[in-house]
Amino acid sequence: MPRLTRRFISVLPLAMSTIFVGWAAPAFAQAFNSDVLSADESDPNRLGWMQGFPPVSERVIGQPDSNYFSFPKMRWTVCHFRELLPTKQVSRGLGAPMPLTYALDDAINDVLFTPLDGSEPMSWQVSLSENYTDGLLILHQGQVVYEYYAGCLDEAGQHGAMSVTKSMTGLLGEILVAEGALDEEALVGDILPELANSAFGNATVQQLLEMTTGLAYSEDYSDPNAEIWAYNAAASPLPKPEGYSGPRTYYEYLATVQPEGEHGQVFGYKTINTDALGWVIARTTGESVTSLLSSRIWQRIGAEQDGYFTVDSIGTPFAAGGLSAGLRDMVRVGQLVLNEGVINGKQLFPAAAVERIRQGGGRQAFAAAGYRTLPGGSYRGMWWSLHNDHGAFTARGQTIYIDPTAEMVIVRFASHPVAGNTAPHLAPSLSSGS
Amino acid sequence: MPRLTRRFISVLPLAMSTIFVGWAAPAFAQAFNSDVLSADESDPNRLGWMQGFPPVSERVIGQPDSNYFSFPKMRWTVCHFRELLPTKQVSRGLGAPMPLTYALDDAINDVLFTPLDGSEPMSWQVSLSENYTDGLLILHQGQVVYEYYAGCLDEAGQHGAMSVTKSMTGLLGEILVAEGALDEEALVGDILPELANSAFGNATVQQLLEMTTGLAYSEDYSDPNAEIWAYNAAASPLPKPEGYSGPRTYYEYLATVQPEGEHGQVFGYKTINTDALGWVIARTTGESVTSLLSSRIWQRIGAEQDGYFTVDSIGTPFAAGGLSAGLRDMVRVGQLVLNEGVINGKQLFPAAAVERIRQGGGRQAFAAAGYRTLPGGSYRGMWWSLHNDHGAFTARGQTIYIDPTAEMVIVRFASHPVAGNTAPHLAPSLSSGS
Repeated sequence: MPRLTRRFISVLPLAMSTIFVGWAAPAFAQAFNSDVLSADESDPNRLGWMQGFPPVSERVIGQPDSNYFSFPKMRWTVCHFRELLPTKQVSRGLGAPMPLTYALDDAINDVLFTPLDGSEPMSWQVSLSENYTDGLLILHQGQVVYEYYAGCLDEAGQHGAMSVTKSMTGLLGEILVAEGALDEEALVGDILPELANSAFGNATVQQLLEMTTGLAYSEDYSDPNAEIWAYNAAASPLPKPEGYSGPRTYYEYLATVQPEGEHGQVFGYKTINTDALGWVIARTTGESVTSLLSSRIWQRIGAEQDGYFTVDSIGTPFAAGGLSAGLRDMVRVGQLVLNEGVINGKQLFPAAAVERIRQGGGRQAFAAAGYRTLPGGSYRGMWWSLHNDHGAFTARGQTIYIDPTAEMVIVRFASHPVAGNTAPHLAPSLSSGS
Repeated sequence: MPRLTRRFISVLPLAMSTIFVGWAAPAFAQAFNSDVLSADESDPNRLGWMQGFPPVSERVIGQPDSNYFSFPKMRWTVCHFRELLPTKQVSRGLGAPMPLTYALDDAINDVLFTPLDGSEPMSWQVSLSENYTDGLLILHQGQVVYEYYAGCLDEAGQHGAMSVTKSMTGLLGEILVAEGALDEEALVGDILPELANSAFGNATVQQLLEMTTGLAYSEDYSDPNAEIWAYNAAASPLPKPEGYSGPRTYYEYLATVQPEGEHGQVFGYKTINTDALGWVIARTTGESVTSLLSSRIWQRIGAEQDGYFTVDSIGTPFAAGGLSAGLRDMVRVGQLVLNEGVINGKQLFPAAAVERIRQGGGRQAFAAAGYRTLPGGSYRGMWWSLHNDHGAFTARGQTIYIDPTAEMVIVRFASHPVAGNTAPHLAPSLSSGS
């Protein structure tokens, strides 16, 4: 068994601190009572969701009444979105997958790290369950050094990528910009006349890519008047409730968004930016995000499995949160991004696409947003740049963490009760009606 | 290019007569007015269903209002069920597909044949469009001699297998019988106590496999009181209508089925037999039909694509009609059946499973049903035996046609306006509410 260098191992604590869901622990303690089930206690196999023919009724998770994204049901649901919702395929094509190569090293199990909230040092193993980890895969120099599955996931399963979907859509956007097919200075309203009179109309593509648009849009779930609920209702592929008169699709909702503040000033992490970008991409290329992600990425990386997106009532993929995919295929995408578009010596897209992501977005606009957990960071192409001395950048929600200096890619799928920065961005495609 | 023998070519007219949807032509003429669109006129690409971002509203096919299985919309829908309904994967596994080998021979395009209704001889090419063919693939001695795609289908797409799904479920049933895991003399009510008080209770597994159960169940769509409508309402994965008090799943419906006539006397082609068989299989093996079809077949045949099943509100796959799959993968299954379970020199299941299918079911019970188009035929394991001098047998709805003497497998996907013996058995998973 090859051994990882001490130098590589030393990078892991920082990475794990950054991607550890538990940084939200204090908020978590407030939001949930202390007897919330642990990872073991809430293991979906142990709880027996959807087992048996039929499952006993209190163990059914289905449409429309089961509240399927509530904890602990969501620990089953994150691997089974297609069984609850209409979906669109991201085809891997018909060829043979390219197997990953393995150089496993269980020294990783001995790593200790300190969560960002400054709580006690934590062992690697403990972090897996504290994070409600469903899958974790680490590549070093392109080889798998660590692979772990739990809960609802195994190597042949697909897991909701949640907000990491944004980074896939953003990558497509950056590819089109780097190729000159999409002008980042163009106004969204010029590309999509349907959005000309909305808040998006006079925003630039770059402002979408950096989420510095000024939009009257709140994702505060505790506020029943927050716009997220209207978006949620529009997005549902299920029949609309009797008397419903609001927007019926992602696109219809986007056209109703009102301005708030000026574009370009402050970073604001708002799901609808990515759905607007998905629409820009579709109009620009004549292909849906699903189709483009298949032809540009999934069919080119030797993926083992198809991915899929949840869709709204007219088949529009949820570009901001609807992707489900295999853990190994997500790490293939991470490695492709680390390699600036090169796989097996072949350049799939201009390196400039990744360079822009890595450089990050406006740091002043980002600082103005006051993100506690990413001080000095920025956001570009729907990826987060840490601007640390390794030049690390990451897709968040679920996690793709890329450290170019350490030649490392980490992909982590989890189903945390709080779902930290996760659930809010998924929910629009999930809940029906209001 | 290798040439097919004259002997092989001479077999094709008989096969095509048998699988030609147009045998229903007189009924078709009655049911539809003469200006029904031709295959070309109704091509889903030409009509522009679901094209554009968003599609124009009159070209949207979605849940729940679009009546998506009506002609000509259904010519798009047959390749896109997953975009309209929740589905469950039939995994191909993660390995490399086994490529098919090709020995194409366009002499097939010159074949002439006479439809079973005795109308004028028809050329091969004309039959493709008269059948609203979406895909046709012919294997001879294990090699592809003909491959054709049209309409919504291409080599990387999946098409509804419709009632051919029955033959997949039936094959699993016959495998379990041949392996001794399932006793064909056992009473359904002994295996499934939930069905003990229904008409299925005192039927044997064999009677399910041959569809000779005596059930009060009509699939006459023109009769608003036909049981099919209650089944349809139970099967829908969508929210039930306000005030709905009927059965809510496939299983709940099956428990309500009342007896009519005696078991074992007369063949009656009734969808619910296959869903009952699917339940028997799940209870016997502890695996759903989707999971078993994956582990026993799809992962072993070098499939290029995953298949999938539509599901009801508790995730039960529609064992009688819910499968969608790639054309090439269906022909791999057909070849496996032709070879009595052998693939690449490996015996995947006892040859006896296929022998029973090929031998067919009770011919007297079949004759008593008065099937015009299969005189002298029979039904066993949810496959139709022609009992002709080639020993041909077939999965119908869509088509797998196996001629052991000619060492030939034909798979045909189509989207005919009448949908012959097709639509009725699909509809339960499709329409919502009543």
